[in-house]
Amino acid sequence: MDTITDPTRHRILTGDRPTGRLHLGHYFGTLQNRVRLQDIGVELYVVIADYQVLTDRDVADDLTGHVEELVLDYLAAGVDPTRATIFTHSAVPALNQLLLPFLSLVSVAELGRNPTVKDEIAHSRQSVVSGLMFTYPVHQAADILFCKADLVPVGQDQLPHLELTRTIARRFNDRYGAGVFPEPQALLSKAPLLLGTDGTKMSKSRGNAITLAAGADETARLIKRAKTDTERHITYDPAGRPEVSSLLLLAALCLDRTPAQVADSIGAAGSAALKKVVTEAVNDYLAPIRARRAEYARDRSYLRTVLREGNERARAVADTTLAEVRAAMNSHY
Amino acid sequence: MDTITDPTRHRILTGDRPTGRLHLGHYFGTLQNRVRLQDIGVELYVVIADYQVLTDRDVADDLTGHVEELVLDYLAAGVDPTRATIFTHSAVPALNQLLLPFLSLVSVAELGRNPTVKDEIAHSRQSVVSGLMFTYPVHQAADILFCKADLVPVGQDQLPHLELTRTIARRFNDRYGAGVFPEPQALLSKAPLLLGTDGTKMSKSRGNAITLAAGADETARLIKRAKTDTERHITYDPAGRPEVSSLLLLAALCLDRTPAQVADSIGAAGSAALKKVVTEAVNDYLAPIRARRAEYARDRSYLRTVLREGNERARAVADTTLAEVRAAMNSHY
Repeated sequence: MDTITDPTRHRILTGDRPTGRLHLGHYFGTLQNRVRLQDIGVELYVVIADYQVLTDRDVADDLTGHVEELVLDYLAAGVDPTRATIFTHSAVPALNQLLLPFLSLVSVAELGRNPTVKDEIAHSRQSVVSGLMFTYPVHQAADILFCKADLVPVGQDQLPHLELTRTIARRFNDRYGAGVFPEPQALLSKAPLLLGTDGTKMSKSRGNAITLAAGADETARLIKRAKTDTERHITYDPAGRPEVSSLLLLAALCLDRTPAQVADSIGAAGSAALKKVVTEAVNDYLAPIRARRAEYARDRSYLRTVLREGNERARAVADTTLAEVRAAMNSHY
Repeated sequence: MDTITDPTRHRILTGDRPTGRLHLGHYFGTLQNRVRLQDIGVELYVVIADYQVLTDRDVADDLTGHVEELVLDYLAAGVDPTRATIFTHSAVPALNQLLLPFLSLVSVAELGRNPTVKDEIAHSRQSVVSGLMFTYPVHQAADILFCKADLVPVGQDQLPHLELTRTIARRFNDRYGAGVFPEPQALLSKAPLLLGTDGTKMSKSRGNAITLAAGADETARLIKRAKTDTERHITYDPAGRPEVSSLLLLAALCLDRTPAQVADSIGAAGSAALKKVVTEAVNDYLAPIRARRAEYARDRSYLRTVLREGNERARAVADTTLAEVRAAMNSHY
């Protein structure tokens, strides 16, 4: 954030796979930050990567439902579709066409050793590597470059992912004409490490995640079951007491305090008191988000309008970029 | 050809890379056959594969010129743009988007062992295999399937190339809904083996090819230089006398006779007589084609109109197919 001096001069591309409802890990990891950036005037593009879930049959069979849930989470969290552009990958042919010139600029060897591909393979539930997975970093480049995003929010571990996009932008400009694409910079965000209620990585498929959409009772139940330890005195010690510390961190994020302050306020009252504090903090924090979500959920036609308008905007941007690309490549007949 | 009982029920996809003017090898190998198919009522789609020449810098630097030369050759040979659809790959985003779902249906291992990829690598002047080359068979599938071509003219050696397109069509239908794509059949054509004037494979880059655009004098010069042998009695013996036999075959194709008949007409008159016969046959045969070519070449704006209208037709077809594909995949938001 510190690097942004004039927010209105920047454009950011972020996005998600439509694999299910977003949880607090997503929210405090990235979604909250996107909304903050939007609200200080950065132009926000959010891609729903519906072509990246095709090999996941459970998702692919109800793609529309998954996409709508994601839009609901965005709107609930404060993404404003009159300022931000929410769109689906499959609705923007000119974006997808960029894949072809971009594929000509990278070698098979580079694709094979790209960490994004390795991640992609690790994330998929299939043992076979599809052509889509293998070329994923190039799609990512198309997603980022079609709208000429100059900033991409990433965590430290994702820095190499962005490198191929920068390489493609540089090679395209070198070969076909300077200045067609920006070389996007990473906007490093320090995503807090929130564990799931079982003490492992928070993940929808493990049933250990509190979703934005969950009700207050469900949230209370999940936190009540959360793993802690037997030490009554509550202290913030991420290395020594990871589960307790993750709960403190969650409460702290919701209360806008430090985890140590939250720990002090509980003192020797033990895990039950900690869970009560966390439950109230989460439910209070999420109450307005959940209320908005429930309201938006009642109007599916509005969701479709948001997507349709976002897709239209993205298509217009992509058409303009593709026309520039074709002109630069002397293929504008 | 024998397999076609009702020509008007078929749609054919063929095409070329815009790497230069077409020569007699192209003409008698495929172009003449396309025109014949068009003329009996088969619907003809001709793709100018402008994304397949990007790694060839000499071509890429004058892409427009190369594309226009190809259109000139098509028109001169008798492709009728009011019936056939001539289009460039880069002008049809919805076609290119098909690459993404199709890539999800093939594995990296399948791509690696595909003979088309090996060919592609052999044809390229680069040592490094680009991502574009590696995924080439999937582009080919998109080219064929976007217009639901049910027949693809190929030579015996190209049969495996079509197999991945059939596999993709089958897998798509199995997974997302029967009947979206046809499984295109090969239309086997027995392309005559015409050698270049130096006795090796006819190829523009070897300077041994007679182009459709060449003048009568240039044609005479090229044939005069053609390699033959010292045996005065002219006989058709492709295995024993490949150069003489190729010249006889060329004359025969132009004169609509058999090579043996042409050989008999020359008898013991030797190579010089053979070359005279071939030169006259070729120049007579090409005269109307060349006249048409010269006429079209005077009107570049007409060429652009042909391309623009072809591209528009291809885009309409591709948009319809992509809409079907997105509906089948539940991604029509």
